[in-house]
Amino acid sequence: MNTRPRRMILATFIHNSGAHPGGWRYGASAGADQHDVQHYVRLVKKAEEGKLHCYFSGDQQGLPYIKGADAYAATDYAGKLEPTTLLAALAMVTSDIGLIGTVSTTYNEPYAVARRIASLDHITRGRAGWNVVTSAGASEARNFGAEDLMDHDLRYERAEEFVDVVKHLWDSWADDAVLRDKAAGRYFDPAKLRQLNHRGRFFNVAGPLNVGRPPQGHPVIVQAGGSGPGRALSARTADMIFTAQSSKDKGQAFYADMKARATAFGRDPAHLAVIPSVQLMVRSTEAEARAAEEELLELIPDALAWSTLCMQMGFDFGAAGYGPDDHMPDIPLTNGGQWVQQELMRIARADNLTLGQLARRATVSRASFAMAGTPEHVADTLEDWFRSGAADGFSLSPNYQPGGLDDFVDQVVPILQRRGLFRTDYEGATLRDNLGLPRPANSFAADPSLGAEPDLWA
Amino acid sequence: MNTRPRRMILATFIHNSGAHPGGWRYGASAGADQHDVQHYVRLVKKAEEGKLHCYFSGDQQGLPYIKGADAYAATDYAGKLEPTTLLAALAMVTSDIGLIGTVSTTYNEPYAVARRIASLDHITRGRAGWNVVTSAGASEARNFGAEDLMDHDLRYERAEEFVDVVKHLWDSWADDAVLRDKAAGRYFDPAKLRQLNHRGRFFNVAGPLNVGRPPQGHPVIVQAGGSGPGRALSARTADMIFTAQSSKDKGQAFYADMKARATAFGRDPAHLAVIPSVQLMVRSTEAEARAAEEELLELIPDALAWSTLCMQMGFDFGAAGYGPDDHMPDIPLTNGGQWVQQELMRIARADNLTLGQLARRATVSRASFAMAGTPEHVADTLEDWFRSGAADGFSLSPNYQPGGLDDFVDQVVPILQRRGLFRTDYEGATLRDNLGLPRPANSFAADPSLGAEPDLWA
Ligand SMILES: Cc1cc2nc3c(=O)[nH]c(=O)nc-3n(C[C@H](O)[C@H](O)[C@H](O)COP(=O)(O)O)c2cc1C
Ligand SMILES: Cc1cc2nc3c(=O)[nH]c(=O)nc-3n(C[C@H](O)[C@H](O)[C@H](O)COP(=O)(O)O)c2cc1C
Repeated sequence: MNTRPRRMILATFIHNSGAHPGGWRYGASAGADQHDVQHYVRLVKKAEEGKLHCYFSGDQQGLPYIKGADAYAATDYAGKLEPTTLLAALAMVTSDIGLIGTVSTTYNEPYAVARRIASLDHITRGRAGWNVVTSAGASEARNFGAEDLMDHDLRYERAEEFVDVVKHLWDSWADDAVLRDKAAGRYFDPAKLRQLNHRGRFFNVAGPLNVGRPPQGHPVIVQAGGSGPGRALSARTADMIFTAQSSKDKGQAFYADMKARATAFGRDPAHLAVIPSVQLMVRSTEAEARAAEEELLELIPDALAWSTLCMQMGFDFGAAGYGPDDHMPDIPLTNGGQWVQQELMRIARADNLTLGQLARRATVSRASFAMAGTPEHVADTLEDWFRSGAADGFSLSPNYQPGGLDDFVDQVVPILQRRGLFRTDYEGATLRDNLGLPRPANSFAADPSLGAEPDLWA
Repeated sequence: MNTRPRRMILATFIHNSGAHPGGWRYGASAGADQHDVQHYVRLVKKAEEGKLHCYFSGDQQGLPYIKGADAYAATDYAGKLEPTTLLAALAMVTSDIGLIGTVSTTYNEPYAVARRIASLDHITRGRAGWNVVTSAGASEARNFGAEDLMDHDLRYERAEEFVDVVKHLWDSWADDAVLRDKAAGRYFDPAKLRQLNHRGRFFNVAGPLNVGRPPQGHPVIVQAGGSGPGRALSARTADMIFTAQSSKDKGQAFYADMKARATAFGRDPAHLAVIPSVQLMVRSTEAEARAAEEELLELIPDALAWSTLCMQMGFDFGAAGYGPDDHMPDIPLTNGGQWVQQELMRIARADNLTLGQLARRATVSRASFAMAGTPEHVADTLEDWFRSGAADGFSLSPNYQPGGLDDFVDQVVPILQRRGLFRTDYEGATLRDNLGLPRPANSFAADPSLGAEPDLWA
């Protein structure tokens, strides 16, 4: 039994120069160079100074569509470092913080992903996590030989099989397979390697993995799908779910649903952490916070806001004859991210927004909960969500970088610690330890009917 | 014109615990833990202390085949860290040495590889290289959904197209595409992004890459194929070729062939460096070198040696009633590699070896040039190859690790430097600079008919 008091999990989700689309223009500095690893070194060190559980790197396999070259040119979305390489680098300048990288199940093969994440888990000594995404962008498909995005539900069917294969591959080696017995001349114990021989609908994978069992057994699995199939994948396979929830009551409903789904899969619901993302800005006074919010808003070009709305809704309002002054028409369900689409639809109708007003909100908040305020206000809000069954913790996306994360770590973390809501130091050696998650048993040990003796020496 | 004196290129090819099959048992220490990043940190720092041009990480997408579980258990081949993640980590503890990672063209997609290597080039600030391999292992195919290995020449046809696509993707962004002009609200110049729209035999890839142009323009391309198609791929696309040559005269023939092939492609042959690998051990006296060689030979576990002999001879001596103390009987001509079989047969009879003695010799030689001797002897041999048209430099594989690389750096490098054969410090900022290679021009700038304006904002 875990006797620790229940405390918040805090992650930070790093957008190159901040989560706010005006963030890269904010402040007097030259801003973040998104190709400079030292930018991320600074951020991850700050996150570790704040004892945050994990640093999270998002990813896409291509550039997003944003209509209009001028709108496009106004964003910092275009160039980024690939997560597994970036996080391996950050492993060397940190010692405790978890490092979670996004890798798509739609454009990769399970053996390759199992290897890279296992390798990252060894390099970090047990601090790696994998954010499993199915890649909703249409441009991504065209970089991998397909004309169109694979069907939404089919992507999740592939992801279900993909995650299972990866987890089994991580179990290829028993934890004590490596002997390095110089005297006996036995480097490892061949009886402790298992071959998967997986034959499935999407993949045939023999195994065993050519990387020893990861320090965490299984690196932490994160998922962020919001649709039915996305939630089902999380509930069955994930340790942590990142989610965009625009209000506490939405968050509570989502939280309850995810915990119930985990329970229905026979899991301990405490072992599926629900982590809404919070886009935030911390200022000493409410007035300063409002002024900074206004300033950031001014930094977003109209063209970018309009393009972002069309992209998030999966619908070209302009081509359909609608303009910024119109109200939300009925539009078809998108094959892309359905959760975001439906959430924006709900907001537009609830607040009676014009498309132009919604565009600005959509561009700023990206459907996540957004907040600007004093350190006490931010702490109060997080505490409220945490205590009222809306969150096990939060994924913090500061509005601008560098600087935004410092404000949170320096000003909000101490308040949460004083209130006993957040721990004052790392408690374990691995990310799993720090999240209070058990280390998974080896599936081959648990079920000897699974797999076979490797035929590599037959 | 390059006015530098011609000097050796020195690389080190890291096998987990040394290139010799007995290497992991050598010495008093606990030996190398192949999953511990600190093992590689120690090696790369030593290589950089010695001013070596590059540190090279090999890779396979699966475990090798070795007959017999006990033989298998005697090797350290089974577990390793994945190169792109490992090298990204090593980037953070080094500042000058090049970091070259192996990535297969047979089991990957060009967009994904272009991104990871570009990312590594940004993280290293221009020190990344990609060793292009087509993956000859049968076990690798079965980890990626195939029953059998793709045909040899077809693998190279795929590799040719793969490398071209990757290079074009690296050119997606002009070098000066990023503006970060806060006042004007322009993060980058959309006129400086190009979309490839590649439609080929193996791949359809739209682009552009979502990583900015690598610091080196194109990270250094390495290739190690020895067949006709392998040599052709190197001659057309590579900056450096790694090769196994068992003697100087074979090395000279290979060197001349590669330079002629590069010239035939219209290239400056000086821009294709030919780097034979050298398996080596350095000892203060010749007597010590011979003793250490003998000791290593004895450390090859019996089961491994026996299995290797049977495989190389294409004959199961044990099943036929022969043991390690017997002498070579008459055996049938093998259906496998007859040249190796007859060569081993000749050695056994010439030196009157028992099967056990022959087995150890068969296990140790891996087609590369191998050498054990004093620092002067090693320096003399390298100088001889270098001056007589057999090599532009060497890829050093010490027989055992840790320790073997230290011997070379501490004892041989100073001699080479005194002789003016090796530079005394890094001369440039990037791996290309240090190799004396030009930075490739952007192919889209050179040929405006290539590619198109991205349709990401159309
Ligand atoms: C906080 C958060 C972070 C996400 N990060 C990524 C990412 O890095 N890459 C990606 O392709 N999708 C990312 N997504 C999208 C989700 O994986 C998923 O596609 C989206 O929430 C739509 O859900 P659905 O696919 O179940 O409809 C993220 C979503 C959320 C809520
Ligand atoms: C020094 C050297 C290093 C090599 N490293 C690798 C490697 O890391 N991974 C791999 O799959 N093949 C590696 N190879 C194999 C070559 O890529 C190639 O498959 C082999 O030399 C046979 O040549 P061919 O394919 O042209 O017949 C290496 C070869 C040499 C000579």
